[in-house]
Amino acid sequence: MRRILILHGPNLQALGTREPEIYGRVTLDEVNTRLSTLGQELGCEVETLQSAHEGVLIDALYQARGRCHGVIFNPGGLTHTSVALRDAIAGAGLPTVEVHVSNPHARESFRHVSLTAGVSLGLVAGFGVESYALALRGLLQKVDARG
Amino acid sequence: MRRILILHGPNLQALGTREPEIYGRVTLDEVNTRLSTLGQELGCEVETLQSAHEGVLIDALYQARGRCHGVIFNPGGLTHTSVALRDAIAGAGLPTVEVHVSNPHARESFRHVSLTAGVSLGLVAGFGVESYALALRGLLQKVDARG
Amino acid sequence: MRRILILHGPNLQALGTREPEIYGRVTLDEVNTRLSTLGQELGCEVETLQSAHEGVLIDALYQARGRCHGVIFNPGGLTHTSVALRDAIAGAGLPTVEVHVSNPHARESFRHVSLTAGVSLGLVAGFGVESYALALRGLLQKVDARG
Amino acid sequence: MRRILILHGPNLQALGTREPEIYGRVTLDEVNTRLSTLGQELGCEVETLQSAHEGVLIDALYQARGRCHGVIFNPGGLTHTSVALRDAIAGAGLPTVEVHVSNPHARESFRHVSLTAGVSLGLVAGFGVESYALALRGLLQKVDARG
Amino acid sequence: MRRILILHGPNLQALGTREPEIYGRVTLDEVNTRLSTLGQELGCEVETLQSAHEGVLIDALYQARGRCHGVIFNPGGLTHTSVALRDAIAGAGLPTVEVHVSNPHARESFRHVSLTAGVSLGLVAGFGVESYALALRGLLQKVDARG
Amino acid sequence: MRRILILHGPNLQALGTREPEIYGRVTLDEVNTRLSTLGQELGCEVETLQSAHEGVLIDALYQARGRCHGVIFNPGGLTHTSVALRDAIAGAGLPTVEVHVSNPHARESFRHVSLTAGVSLGLVAGFGVESYALALRGLLQKVDARG
Amino acid sequence: MRRILILHGPNLQALGTREPEIYGRVTLDEVNTRLSTLGQELGCEVETLQSAHEGVLIDALYQARGRCHGVIFNPGGLTHTSVALRDAIAGAGLPTVEVHVSNPHARESFRHVSLTAGVSLGLVAGFGVESYALALRGLLQKVDARG
Amino acid sequence: MRRILILHGPNLQALGTREPEIYGRVTLDEVNTRLSTLGQELGCEVETLQSAHEGVLIDALYQARGRCHGVIFNPGGLTHTSVALRDAIAGAGLPTVEVHVSNPHARESFRHVSLTAGVSLGLVAGFGVESYALALRGLLQKVDARG
Amino acid sequence: MRRILILHGPNLQALGTREPEIYGRVTLDEVNTRLSTLGQELGCEVETLQSAHEGVLIDALYQARGRCHGVIFNPGGLTHTSVALRDAIAGAGLPTVEVHVSNPHARESFRHVSLTAGVSLGLVAGFGVESYALALRGLLQKVDARG
Amino acid sequence: MRRILILHGPNLQALGTREPEIYGRVTLDEVNTRLSTLGQELGCEVETLQSAHEGVLIDALYQARGRCHGVIFNPGGLTHTSVALRDAIAGAGLPTVEVHVSNPHARESFRHVSLTAGVSLGLVAGFGVESYALALRGLLQKVDARG
Amino acid sequence: MRRILILHGPNLQALGTREPEIYGRVTLDEVNTRLSTLGQELGCEVETLQSAHEGVLIDALYQARGRCHGVIFNPGGLTHTSVALRDAIAGAGLPTVEVHVSNPHARESFRHVSLTAGVSLGLVAGFGVESYALALRGLLQKVDARG
Amino acid sequence: MRRILILHGPNLQALGTREPEIYGRVTLDEVNTRLSTLGQELGCEVETLQSAHEGVLIDALYQARGRCHGVIFNPGGLTHTSVALRDAIAGAGLPTVEVHVSNPHARESFRHVSLTAGVSLGLVAGFGVESYALALRGLLQKVDARG
Repeated sequence: MRRILILHGPNLQALGTREPEIYGRVTLDEVNTRLSTLGQELGCEVETLQSAHEGVLIDALYQARGRCHGVIFNPGGLTHTSVALRDAIAGAGLPTVEVHVSNPHARESFRHVSLTAGVSLGLVAGFGVESYALALRGLLQKVDARG
Repeated sequence: MRRILILHGPNLQALGTREPEIYGRVTLDEVNTRLSTLGQELGCEVETLQSAHEGVLIDALYQARGRCHGVIFNPGGLTHTSVALRDAIAGAGLPTVEVHVSNPHARESFRHVSLTAGVSLGLVAGFGVESYALALRGLLQKVDARG
Repeated sequence: MRRILILHGPNLQALGTREPEIYGRVTLDEVNTRLSTLGQELGCEVETLQSAHEGVLIDALYQARGRCHGVIFNPGGLTHTSVALRDAIAGAGLPTVEVHVSNPHARESFRHVSLTAGVSLGLVAGFGVESYALALRGLLQKVDARG
Repeated sequence: MRRILILHGPNLQALGTREPEIYGRVTLDEVNTRLSTLGQELGCEVETLQSAHEGVLIDALYQARGRCHGVIFNPGGLTHTSVALRDAIAGAGLPTVEVHVSNPHARESFRHVSLTAGVSLGLVAGFGVESYALALRGLLQKVDARG
Repeated sequence: MRRILILHGPNLQALGTREPEIYGRVTLDEVNTRLSTLGQELGCEVETLQSAHEGVLIDALYQARGRCHGVIFNPGGLTHTSVALRDAIAGAGLPTVEVHVSNPHARESFRHVSLTAGVSLGLVAGFGVESYALALRGLLQKVDARG
Repeated sequence: MRRILILHGPNLQALGTREPEIYGRVTLDEVNTRLSTLGQELGCEVETLQSAHEGVLIDALYQARGRCHGVIFNPGGLTHTSVALRDAIAGAGLPTVEVHVSNPHARESFRHVSLTAGVSLGLVAGFGVESYALALRGLLQKVDARG
Repeated sequence: MRRILILHGPNLQALGTREPEIYGRVTLDEVNTRLSTLGQELGCEVETLQSAHEGVLIDALYQARGRCHGVIFNPGGLTHTSVALRDAIAGAGLPTVEVHVSNPHARESFRHVSLTAGVSLGLVAGFGVESYALALRGLLQKVDARG
Repeated sequence: MRRILILHGPNLQALGTREPEIYGRVTLDEVNTRLSTLGQELGCEVETLQSAHEGVLIDALYQARGRCHGVIFNPGGLTHTSVALRDAIAGAGLPTVEVHVSNPHARESFRHVSLTAGVSLGLVAGFGVESYALALRGLLQKVDARG
Repeated sequence: MRRILILHGPNLQALGTREPEIYGRVTLDEVNTRLSTLGQELGCEVETLQSAHEGVLIDALYQARGRCHGVIFNPGGLTHTSVALRDAIAGAGLPTVEVHVSNPHARESFRHVSLTAGVSLGLVAGFGVESYALALRGLLQKVDARG
Repeated sequence: MRRILILHGPNLQALGTREPEIYGRVTLDEVNTRLSTLGQELGCEVETLQSAHEGVLIDALYQARGRCHGVIFNPGGLTHTSVALRDAIAGAGLPTVEVHVSNPHARESFRHVSLTAGVSLGLVAGFGVESYALALRGLLQKVDARG
Repeated sequence: MRRILILHGPNLQALGTREPEIYGRVTLDEVNTRLSTLGQELGCEVETLQSAHEGVLIDALYQARGRCHGVIFNPGGLTHTSVALRDAIAGAGLPTVEVHVSNPHARESFRHVSLTAGVSLGLVAGFGVESYALALRGLLQKVDARG
Repeated sequence: MRRILILHGPNLQALGTREPEIYGRVTLDEVNTRLSTLGQELGCEVETLQSAHEGVLIDALYQARGRCHGVIFNPGGLTHTSVALRDAIAGAGLPTVEVHVSNPHARESFRHVSLTAGVSLGLVAGFGVESYALALRGLLQKVDARG
């Protein structure tokens, strides 16, 4: 059975209550529950982790090696600034999909650049929390295709 | 019943034979057929159009007003250079999802900028031709949520 | 009798219905009718053409050579991106006035740059559709002054 | 009866004798007389002021509040460098049209940027001193439309 | 007894009536009165000057030498553009605190740069007109500490 | 009674011993004691936290929601690089004042940019550790004014 | 027998009459005739196409696949702006030589950048219409060397 | 007899007392006296003017037309920021030599750019107040050579 | 006896297994053992610490004050992005040598900039894990020379 | 009889053995011999010089004045960095064609800029050593056309 | 007796014949003779050297140490590109005046930057060959003032 | 026995006497002697060459091919400006270590960029003349590892 790590970066613990006009009103727990259910439908086990600590996110990526088949990663604000996370995605070597709840291209110009997307498999953004579910479907197809 | 326009920009007519190490070996006809089938499953009718002409793409966006509920758009190389297409997406006013077969952030730096994404609902990139299917699912959920 | 070409670029076909809070509620047909009437008052014949195709706009500029005395041109989003149109304005060699319905300097920074204005006679922007009428008056005076 | 302030920035006192191959041979007095006459035709009173002092121009903008219905402003070289003037146009809150005798886009690249245009209603440039007359027509129509 | 010069740059004469949603509804006279009272409490005499003229501001800085113990300076829009004012602050050699009513970092990007702050003692911004009072307290402590 | 969180970012634990020619010789404990005393005078309770961990700072901002009325924040070197902290200030939604002991504009150019100030209420910098006390006064007035 | 496509971009239809001090007085028909004759001498058949439409140029590049052995391409103003054409050159996969009549490096700075040259075999510029003939010689040698 | 205008911009009134480690200890009066004496030796009359007002400097340049044979101009901090002064130098049309007491290239990078030098005859910088005398010699030779 | 802190930043825990074609196959434990042995030969005690947490690295630098004579620091991806680490190196005040396993100048352009090197004693890069040993030799010589 | 100088810049002495996957396996002697033969066919005498010294190349350009009718110049890496060579090409005043063996636009971005091409007649690049022969043909036609 | 080295960089050997509309018609020999005569008047011996070789210029600067009291240096095109020459001027430690025959600020933008001026005493430009004589006067005064 | 070329670029001939506060007081001869001795200890022969001529340095790199096993290269100021040297290092194909006596990252920003490091094996900087010895050790290990 396939296993996918869902990784949430800084500020995502506040999903649902933080700037809801941008990020919506669904909480992170609800997102995780929803992904767990979808995972079961699609035949995969889902692990979730949220942290505001770049170091915890980096460690999680390496710990998933050998245990998970892919990663769905919303790096939050670190998307635009962290070379260390970029190196960790490349270093862990798992197929990783970058996810954003809002559409970064419709916001401030410093959000138009992603350091992490360049070493990711792909990118889903702008569908609200639904972005995660689309990413999970897409990642599983890629994982299966790689056999 | 919902109706979605699938719009393919320049060079996509050659999908499947053009640089297959980047874009894969599935042809545009196969993509369109696949989206038609998926549309039926999800309860929507799908129209498709491909053109290398910016003007044809602009006209298609306006002609979809009042007739379609949303657009899935792969603007190809025009993504990075066309203010006129950006204006047409905003002007037509339909919810539009930007799609890319490859992951632009993993390629030349002039592909890291998207003029069209800033007025789109969201973005799916890097899943090969599967990007279209994910975009269709995501768009329909948004269309339904808007009522 | 003097003859002036009024050239409308991409997205202007939707004038009046597209983002009316920016562009107003007057349609392109109404604009053209209005310019025709004003032309008669000022003693000039007016031809109008709208296209979303850069190629059609380029051809129109060259076809006006020898037949028209000047051009009023709203290049729409191509203003900021088209070297080919710039070359066509210079190549056709007719006195050309650039027109914008809205004020590009009050909008996104990529609209602050105009590739076409550098080879134009002058520029009128921000008066809504009235920009065209002012441009027509100004152009005719210049055409007359040149003899 | 409507009242319009015509404001001329630095170097415009020398109009007609300064670099006539760029700015023409009409003097500032002649321009002002011409605008006064045109104002009478169009049913408005015209006040004029020229100064090379940014401070005088700023004060004039505020003093026009409550007394004038709009401003026609040629900020000269301050167009490209003065945030203080930009703030004064916004602060005075009158509809203001930016005017240039020559076409800044056809000259040095530091003239392609306008700090003041972003808070102005519109822009007329490149028609020689006729730019002022076009601006006056356009401004009055806007003033009337705002009622 | 200590003496402090309060210097207000361009557009501040209109404080209270100019864009009140940004700058508030307190007038400059009220600000000056308030600072005078606060100065008495804190044992210092306060002089105030407002000018839209860079030259007047420069002269005021030099004239304060030998007569004042410090300067509180809101250079308005000149903050971002005036090397001459920067040179005058350095040349006069008095401890100077830069003050802004609004928060420049929350506004247009050309307001994120300050030429004058680099030669100032410190900076207070974003507290509305209260910024002046905080600056006065801070400056007096610094002046006393320098003996 | 009002409650304010004083948040100190990386390197501030070493205040008083680290580069004293730039940051002075007062220790962080002394600063905190001083702010506590000043808080009592001004009728507010003060909580303090220092951390070199971006993640701890982000968590602290969210935990202050509902419990504190405002934040005084010296993000240290993260000021210039952390989008995640910017998002946390905006996400927590408390009025936040940015504080710097030294004057960043008088130092290296990479310190002239602040990512966090754009979502803060205001900014106090350059008064040595006195910057904190000024910020506390200013913040309380704003908190009271908001009622 | 070898077959080469000669592709002329926007504005080249006006060769010979458009800005002759830059582009010379030879017409496009004369160029094409000349290349046809030279082709016969060098043992190759020559097809020619001119269009101001980016889309027509893109289609022509793909239609040459399997039928032609190489392309000589003057993209005109699209050289500096079209990612879509760059993708088409790469996608069609034929050896392509970029040609310019004038020397772009001796003109405006926006002409110093070529998006299309990076995926071309080589570049000939500045020899007037003779650039085409040199390119044809060079391309044929390369085509022969590749066998 | 030849007549030369010596124009001193902002902050030069404080020469000799302002940052003497950069600008030296000679006062502006001493400089002017010295230039007057040198002028007599070289057979020219010298007029001097100092102002911190850009507007006064601009007016002085135009008033020198027809009356003076050349200008020696130290624009101070306006060197790096004033398009209006650049326009005035060009507009007045007199041969103008730019002078700096210190060497701008050995100071902050914003001093490495001169807007005014591009329309000046030449430049003398870094010789302390002696820069003026060298400029006067050089200017007179040029004036004589032009006859 | 001299004591040196060897500090390894994010991703270095995975040395030997992470992208071995770039970083080689020696593990971090082997590197640390090797440096310990070399330290003994050169008469110094070696402490090692690895962390993906910027905060832990900052704390380690301050805790080495008074206890260690120098630091060898491989900041990994934080090299290019962390002002906070730069401040910590400067704040701790120990002679610090920056080390990289690969040669950053031969990789992506965002790796060509180092924020931390500017406050370091020196730099060794590109010798694989041997970079650490060279740095240790060099650092000890410098420490001895400083007495 | 016409005489052409063939000038080879730094690193070209190693042609044929240096990075042959980029520059091919033909040696510089073979290139020169080939050009000599072609020159005879085309009725011109050919001189060749190679040097890694910018100074020798500059001298050669001036020494060709009055003796040669044109220059074919491969400036190697100096293409992108040497203003002195640019000045020498302009100063010598001979028609000069810039040649590159590889296609600079398909390599590192610092090779996309040419300082020397702006004062050259034209440019041939990317045909391997055949670029020289094409350049010779093109240059001779231009020399003949100039009479 | 004082001794001054006059150093002429690349292309100056051709002074008088090279682009005389920019550089004039006086030859380098005439310049050197003139400076020798002026030197005698002013009581100094003058040595001159011209080279197109950066290396020769660097060596000359060091060889002047201990033997000359100052340097007058026209680095030609190397002004804008040579860090090595900048280092040599600083390394030789002699007071050095940078000279240009033309006014670099009135030419291409790459001539507006000087790497060498930042370590020079001062700068004289734009007076034609007279720039050298002015520089010699200025340098000798500085040399004498330093004792 | 292994043989290593030690190559010193411009200004290094003056080592020990040139700006000793930056570069120290050890002369180049002493450095070379020291490296010769160290080479003997480590079992390698050392050749040394210093030149201020880019051309001599380029020639030396090629002449070392086949005769030396590696190069230690301090390109001095050419580090930041010479594409020709970069090409020579790549062209000669020997493992090359870049060395700097000072730490370029702690100096002017134009020294933060290295054109030559990108094609070098590695980099040692900031250890004074000891940088050479560390580089020699590192290079020999790499040479041995490559067999």
